[in-house]
Amino acid sequence: MIFASDNWAGAHPKIAAALSAGAQGYASAYGTGELDRKVEQRFCELFERDVAVFFVGTGTAANSIALASLSRPGGVAFCHTEAHVIEDEGGAPEFLTGGARLRGVTGDLGRMDPKALDAAIRLHPAQFVHSGQPMAATITQATEIGTLYGLDQIAVIGEVCREHAIPLHLDGARFANALVALETTPAEMTWKRGVDIVSFGGTKNGCWCAEAVVVMDPAKASDLPFLRKRSAHLFSKSRFIAAQFDAYFEDGLWLETARHANAMAATLADRLEESPAVRLAWKPQANEVFALIHTQIASELQARGARFHQWNLPQGFSQTLNDGEALYRFVTSFATTPADIEAFGALLP
Amino acid sequence: MIFASDNWAGAHPKIAAALSAGAQGYASAYGTGELDRKVEQRFCELFERDVAVFFVGTGTAANSIALASLSRPGGVAFCHTEAHVIEDEGGAPEFLTGGARLRGVTGDLGRMDPKALDAAIRLHPAQFVHSGQPMAATITQATEIGTLYGLDQIAVIGEVCREHAIPLHLDGARFANALVALETTPAEMTWKRGVDIVSFGGTKNGCWCAEAVVVMDPAKASDLPFLRKRSAHLFSKSRFIAAQFDAYFEDGLWLETARHANAMAATLADRLEESPAVRLAWKPQANEVFALIHTQIASELQARGARFHQWNLPQGFSQTLNDGEALYRFVTSFATTPADIEAFGALLP
Amino acid sequence: MIFASDNWAGAHPKIAAALSAGAQGYASAYGTGELDRKVEQRFCELFERDVAVFFVGTGTAANSIALASLSRPGGVAFCHTEAHVIEDEGGAPEFLTGGARLRGVTGDLGRMDPKALDAAIRLHPAQFVHSGQPMAATITQATEIGTLYGLDQIAVIGEVCREHAIPLHLDGARFANALVALETTPAEMTWKRGVDIVSFGGTKNGCWCAEAVVVMDPAKASDLPFLRKRSAHLFSKSRFIAAQFDAYFEDGLWLETARHANAMAATLADRLEESPAVRLAWKPQANEVFALIHTQIASELQARGARFHQWNLPQGFSQTLNDGEALYRFVTSFATTPADIEAFGALLP
Amino acid sequence: MIFASDNWAGAHPKIAAALSAGAQGYASAYGTGELDRKVEQRFCELFERDVAVFFVGTGTAANSIALASLSRPGGVAFCHTEAHVIEDEGGAPEFLTGGARLRGVTGDLGRMDPKALDAAIRLHPAQFVHSGQPMAATITQATEIGTLYGLDQIAVIGEVCREHAIPLHLDGARFANALVALETTPAEMTWKRGVDIVSFGGTKNGCWCAEAVVVMDPAKASDLPFLRKRSAHLFSKSRFIAAQFDAYFEDGLWLETARHANAMAATLADRLEESPAVRLAWKPQANEVFALIHTQIASELQARGARFHQWNLPQGFSQTLNDGEALYRFVTSFATTPADIEAFGALLP
Repeated sequence: MIFASDNWAGAHPKIAAALSAGAQGYASAYGTGELDRKVEQRFCELFERDVAVFFVGTGTAANSIALASLSRPGGVAFCHTEAHVIEDEGGAPEFLTGGARLRGVTGDLGRMDPKALDAAIRLHPAQFVHSGQPMAATITQATEIGTLYGLDQIAVIGEVCREHAIPLHLDGARFANALVALETTPAEMTWKRGVDIVSFGGTKNGCWCAEAVVVMDPAKASDLPFLRKRSAHLFSKSRFIAAQFDAYFEDGLWLETARHANAMAATLADRLEESPAVRLAWKPQANEVFALIHTQIASELQARGARFHQWNLPQGFSQTLNDGEALYRFVTSFATTPADIEAFGALLP
Repeated sequence: MIFASDNWAGAHPKIAAALSAGAQGYASAYGTGELDRKVEQRFCELFERDVAVFFVGTGTAANSIALASLSRPGGVAFCHTEAHVIEDEGGAPEFLTGGARLRGVTGDLGRMDPKALDAAIRLHPAQFVHSGQPMAATITQATEIGTLYGLDQIAVIGEVCREHAIPLHLDGARFANALVALETTPAEMTWKRGVDIVSFGGTKNGCWCAEAVVVMDPAKASDLPFLRKRSAHLFSKSRFIAAQFDAYFEDGLWLETARHANAMAATLADRLEESPAVRLAWKPQANEVFALIHTQIASELQARGARFHQWNLPQGFSQTLNDGEALYRFVTSFATTPADIEAFGALLP
Repeated sequence: MIFASDNWAGAHPKIAAALSAGAQGYASAYGTGELDRKVEQRFCELFERDVAVFFVGTGTAANSIALASLSRPGGVAFCHTEAHVIEDEGGAPEFLTGGARLRGVTGDLGRMDPKALDAAIRLHPAQFVHSGQPMAATITQATEIGTLYGLDQIAVIGEVCREHAIPLHLDGARFANALVALETTPAEMTWKRGVDIVSFGGTKNGCWCAEAVVVMDPAKASDLPFLRKRSAHLFSKSRFIAAQFDAYFEDGLWLETARHANAMAATLADRLEESPAVRLAWKPQANEVFALIHTQIASELQARGARFHQWNLPQGFSQTLNDGEALYRFVTSFATTPADIEAFGALLP
Repeated sequence: MIFASDNWAGAHPKIAAALSAGAQGYASAYGTGELDRKVEQRFCELFERDVAVFFVGTGTAANSIALASLSRPGGVAFCHTEAHVIEDEGGAPEFLTGGARLRGVTGDLGRMDPKALDAAIRLHPAQFVHSGQPMAATITQATEIGTLYGLDQIAVIGEVCREHAIPLHLDGARFANALVALETTPAEMTWKRGVDIVSFGGTKNGCWCAEAVVVMDPAKASDLPFLRKRSAHLFSKSRFIAAQFDAYFEDGLWLETARHANAMAATLADRLEESPAVRLAWKPQANEVFALIHTQIASELQARGARFHQWNLPQGFSQTLNDGEALYRFVTSFATTPADIEAFGALLP
């Protein structure tokens, strides 16, 4: 009954097995080996174009280094006010970009409002040094609260970025969960909608630690090897990340684990809804479920072994809380089982 | 016949097996799980004192974050002119410390000369803002060229640091190789000789990616969690590093693999010395062998499948090279077999 | 009729004369001369305690270096959402602190709301690395929109900071204007109300470029010489700033120029109020006047030679704008004359 | 008898007078005024091409911001091992570039050896992330020890930079002294010899604080306004720097003061040579004289009021010191008078 976070799970057995299998033998270090090349090529196929790929070990590193590659002096990057990059990464994006600022943009239920984005960018007119210069926008897909940008919504954000001549970054810590929920392809969800650079996450979806910065136009990636190295994110035995991704993509494992996690979330949501003591906060779209529960009931559930966290009310949340109610987050993953959900459901009043 | 580097090997089977075994089940994320605690405790036992331990994924991260914890505005850190931190880490120590400078100090065969260190520190008098302020010294054990600081030599360096009131860092990317070569203990090789903070490496000695910053006085570690996070080096599934270290320390595996690597280096050195076409550059002390070989012969060896790199002549190297000779480095590891060496030896003229 | 900004004026004749007089002779460089000492002593007298004083050339430098001296890894500094540090300094505070983040705190008419401050700090719990650690709060006195914190209001903010164990910085770009408006003393407006460090501005009030970081507890200033030097803000001929401050304080010139500027603002406000085409936006408290004017009328005034800027509506502004109305800012200074105001008044409908 | 440094002098009377004259009236702030434009145009005339000009207040700021505009991730800038940027700027170049490293290059008597520069750059091969990427070379003219690069020597350095596709920066803290000594023009001493960007110093030669970053190709200066702002070096009353430069260039004042300072140095050198107790260390070429003097005699001279500093022996210095001898530096300036030198000469044994 662990719904605390998708990073509380370990690694998928196939990932672990691939890693063990790859432990043998020698390979050229620092990302120059054959397996690195093979997996990079796999990314090109997935994105249906030549992309430049840089493996790193944490999602925060992927986001920070991706933004660093877009950084400009006095640069301002625009993100949702509740985005992971601004709220949960300990200042890494600002630090690893060498001083870029993040400016929060409003929007309901985790999604940046395109009009608010446009207005925010306009607060930083070109060549007005006092306010700095716009350098990028970044969206999270799926968002921090398990909602999704529809493909059209991404396209609209991409259009705003184009108008202001800034690139668009997509934080895909839960890329696969979003992808299968939208029943689309990596290409459709990114560059065909105006996304220039992606943090492609594998960790939350079954890997130990496999993240990649994916640059849609390799010609714009020339600084990235140095940006990764100067922040100490180039692994000597880089193939241990490559091996994870290799297994992750093999036979569509990544889509399968994401579909499973999403399905578990849907089941969990159904189960929660059945309880008169619980109200869903909004319809879950990926692998996170948010619900309003009385704190006393939540405490009892936790006391009986369920793990899940209280959460701040997001912007645009319009329901009224009853006395004693609070918002709680439940996250499912590749490792969640129907039995987990049944066990939890049995605890619900 | 792979002697290119100890990071060309994968992971020791026991490490890989432990990682697979640990892939099951859930654990609290971001280094707060039980296994993290257990391994941290193991470090305390090894160092025979309460130490603060911070897992990271690369040796460069360990060095950079360790130095960041010692950083002061306008700070200058002193290292050997050929140290890994100054020559091979792409500026990460300077960047992740937020602008500390590294000043090279001379010394023969990879070891910083204590008198040269003292003289270098004196170039930065207290409160003279123009030259900045001394913030730390850092030594590498084993050194970049496979030599060792004797315990007394570490103590002398430690004494110089004490006199100037700066802390001493030890880059232990090959900590285990040095330890078994000196037949000593972690405590004797570090804090009992004046070392305040250690980059403790597991990667080169059989792990996939397991490094730790070990702070001898936990009271001085309060900034480290934030320094690690802001540089994006806090892993969500931190237990995958903990699991590696757990297996690494189990039944002395780490000492065994280090002894093996060192023994292989000694065997390789013997084999090289037997060839009239090869001269040992200096006596190997850990798991690296350096030899003078005619470039044509080296090329032939490489053409026949041996992997090893040409190297720059280090400071204090006093032999005269014959026409056409160059210096080459051979590195052994847990994965090197006697058969590898025999196969290579058979190629030698 | 120049009301664009108080930094459009040059230097007060007495400042200029002092600078000319001081151009003769030699003095020890880099802030070590006798005049530097004398002026530092003068600051101690003004603040009625031993303070540490560091001259710099711009207000942005004073703010940034002051915050840098309070910086912690992953640090978050709290300021009003419309403060100069976050809106108008091109990212210098973030950059010169080495990566501190600024978090906007709401509050009406330019003043940070103490309760909102408390709530914002609580979003960054101690030791929760993901959200970073609180490092300081900063208030602007007078605020960006010419309002003032009363002494009690400063004390309340100071109390919130004490509760959370973070220091309080005061951006005093218009320190003198606030001081004379409140008819108080530097000690009463700062450390007696919980302020730990001040950006003391002279530039807007009659100097060419004279700003100082004033640290209330000199024991906490040990890093400041290095922070100033590493950001290239230590002047070799430091005495040219000292000379400006020397004249600035002589016979209370600084209070006189501030009183004059404030009085001119009051006169201007009266004159504006007399016009049926103008509504004061709020009561001016220092040397800035904000008024609602129809854009067409404003354009005509500007076309006839008056210089003043349109301004964004501040948080907490509750008046309703009529069609075509906009907010405009008028700033007075030591150089503003009654004749200027009369000339401008004559243009008003 | 002040020969401690050329920054111990105040300002030339004509500079001071211009500043007083310019204190009247209003001007658009932050470098957007008419006088700023006029002086920028004057720079274009002096350099015989369209240049982009950015005023700053310290030489360290000029150097640091100039290098920042050339910065690349993992970047390495090459300078003489005893250059001001690496020895005397408290880490500002590294900090304000956001982490660039300075690598010392050897060379006799303050001048970087072109072959050593070439060899140093080759230690940083393109795309080898571990060693970082070359980003610029920087020379000092006149050098820290008062020697000069001949025009041909600059051209050779420029050629090495071209071969490696890195730009060349010139630290011209004593630009005018070098210019008049070589009897050449700004264009000949800079871009016609391969210099891409200049720190143009006025402070040491008669200004209070007037320095400029001069970019030979304005198309490469687009980031500079933001680099200057983010380091807090954009002055609101920018015209006070413009006014200094305006007077500095008027009727060739800058060349006159530089010629005077150089002539005073030559006279001082003659006077020193006449003393049997003194040996010139090398022939002075600009406004600095270095001499070998017995420390006891030097102390006596200092005790009788002469101000000058002991200095480290530079690289390439081949004379043998007698027992008790040390090297001393004497600097002359616009303010040095023949009477000063005569008074000092009279003290010499």
